[in-house]
Amino acid sequence: MSGLVYLNGEWLAPEEAKVSVFDRGFLFADGIYEVIPVYQGRPFLVEHHLARLHRSLAAINIPDQPEGFWQDLTNQLITRNQVTDGLIYFQVTRGAETKRSHLPQTVLTPTVFANVSPLQLHWDTPAPANVVLYEDIRWLRCDIKSISLLGNIMLKQFAEQRGAIEPLLHRDGSITEGASSNYFAVKDGVLYTAPADHLILPGITRMWVLQLAAQLNLPVREEAFTIRELAQLDELFLTSSSREIQPIAKIDDIIIGNGRCGPLTQKLVEAFHESKRAHLA
Amino acid sequence: MSGLVYLNGEWLAPEEAKVSVFDRGFLFADGIYEVIPVYQGRPFLVEHHLARLHRSLAAINIPDQPEGFWQDLTNQLITRNQVTDGLIYFQVTRGAETKRSHLPQTVLTPTVFANVSPLQLHWDTPAPANVVLYEDIRWLRCDIKSISLLGNIMLKQFAEQRGAIEPLLHRDGSITEGASSNYFAVKDGVLYTAPADHLILPGITRMWVLQLAAQLNLPVREEAFTIRELAQLDELFLTSSSREIQPIAKIDDIIIGNGRCGPLTQKLVEAFHESKRAHLA
Repeated sequence: MSGLVYLNGEWLAPEEAKVSVFDRGFLFADGIYEVIPVYQGRPFLVEHHLARLHRSLAAINIPDQPEGFWQDLTNQLITRNQVTDGLIYFQVTRGAETKRSHLPQTVLTPTVFANVSPLQLHWDTPAPANVVLYEDIRWLRCDIKSISLLGNIMLKQFAEQRGAIEPLLHRDGSITEGASSNYFAVKDGVLYTAPADHLILPGITRMWVLQLAAQLNLPVREEAFTIRELAQLDELFLTSSSREIQPIAKIDDIIIGNGRCGPLTQKLVEAFHESKRAHLA
Repeated sequence: MSGLVYLNGEWLAPEEAKVSVFDRGFLFADGIYEVIPVYQGRPFLVEHHLARLHRSLAAINIPDQPEGFWQDLTNQLITRNQVTDGLIYFQVTRGAETKRSHLPQTVLTPTVFANVSPLQLHWDTPAPANVVLYEDIRWLRCDIKSISLLGNIMLKQFAEQRGAIEPLLHRDGSITEGASSNYFAVKDGVLYTAPADHLILPGITRMWVLQLAAQLNLPVREEAFTIRELAQLDELFLTSSSREIQPIAKIDDIIIGNGRCGPLTQKLVEAFHESKRAHLA
C-alpha cells in the first residue's frame, strides 16, 4: 500500500509527486492537514474529520473545494489503493507563485495533496507507555490543524531522546496536550481533559472518547490538570486517530496508579473497540 | 532577474525547481531559512547572516553543509544571475522520506534551496508608515529563523487588511517585534529595542543599528516597551534586511511624535546609508 498519491487532480507514484519550491506550504508552512483512519475500507468518523478540515481552511482563509470534493477524494483514495485498514492524509496549502512574499501578490490556486499509509487495525489494549514533561513552546492557535509543526517536531525529538512516546506539554502550569495527541486524566473516578480552546487541537478521538464516556455515565470535566496535581493522578491516557487510546504508565519519574492500564481507561478502550465493531457491522 | 534557482546541487529555471510532497519542509515546516541583501554585487553583512544560518541549523539539529559551502553558494548565486542589487534566499529542510512520520525513520539528506530576488538599493529616507497592534500568537522560539511561519503570515494578513505595513506584536503586555521586522523606539533621547531572547528573531539589521547607535554615542537600552507606554514614544522605526530602517507614523490611532521621521531615526538612516557606502567602496 505504498500506493497512488493524489496531487492537484493527478494520481501519481509517490516518487513522482512534487510541488514547486515556491509553494507556500514549503516556504511559509501556509497550509493545513487532516488525517482520517480507514477500517476495513470504511473511513471512521469521516464527517467529523471533514468538518474540522473545513474549519481549518476557513481559519486561515484558504478557499475550500467544491461540495462533495473531499468525500469523493476519500472514496477514490480507498478504491484506487484497495485500502482495507489505513490512514488517509489530506494537505492543502495556499498555493504557489514564483516570487517569495509573505503576502500573496496574485490570486492563487490551493495545492491539494492526499495519500494513504498503512494502519494496523487492533482490538487489544496497548501496553502502557511513558511520557515526559516539556514546556509547551508552540503558538497560541493550536486549534488550527496547520502544517506549521516545527515546534511539535522539536518536542517529539526531545521526548524520543528520553525514551518517551510523547512529550506531555504544559503552559502556565497547566497540561495542554501531547505533540500529536490529547490527554485524559482520571482522579477519584472523574475523567479530566483540557478544554478545547486555542491551546489544543480538538482531536476527533478526544471528542469520541467524551461521547463514549457520556454513554458510560462517567463523570467528565473539561478542565486542564496542573503540573502540581500530576502525582495524584489515578490514571492517564492519550488519544489520537492513529493510536486511539494509549494508556500512560509514567510521567518523567512519576508512576501513574500502579503503572498498569487503569479500570476507567480499560472501560473506554473496550467501548472504543465496540464502536469500531458497530462501524464495521 | 527571475534567474536560476539552486536546488540540491542543480541549477534550474524557477518553474522546474520542485521538491517531493514528502519533503519535511512541506509536511512539517521542518526547516530554516536566511535572507542576505546584495548591494552592487556584494553581499552585505554576509558573515553575520551565515553565522545565524549555522545557529538556526544547529538549533533544530539539521546537519550543516561542508566548510565554505554557503560562501561559495552566495558567490555562485550572484555570478550566475549577474546580480547587482538583490536578496539572496537560502532554505534548508531536514529532507524527504516517502512515509509521513513526525520523527524521521531513516537518515535523511537535507534539502537545500536558494535563489535571488530583486531588491531596490535606496539612499532616501522611507516615508513613515503605519503599524497595528496584535497579540503575538507565535511560538516561544522566535529566535530560530524557521520556515514554520503560518503565525507570521496570519498576523501580516490582519495588518494588511487594516492598511498597515506590519503588525506590531505584544506578549504579556510587552512589544516583541513585527511579523518580519524588529523595532526601535525613542523616548527622551534613549533608544529602546526588545532584548534578543527567545521571543524575537535577532535581526542582523537590528544588530547593525545597535552598532551604529554605539558609534554615534546614542544611549541604548535592550528593554521591551510595554503597550501602556506607546502613547509616550517620541519616535518608532522598524528594521529588516529588505526594509533597512522604516520610520513609523502611527500605531493603531496613536500618532508617534508628529507623524514624521524623527531626528534620531534620521541620524540612523544616514549612518546606515554611510555604512552601505563604505561597504561598496
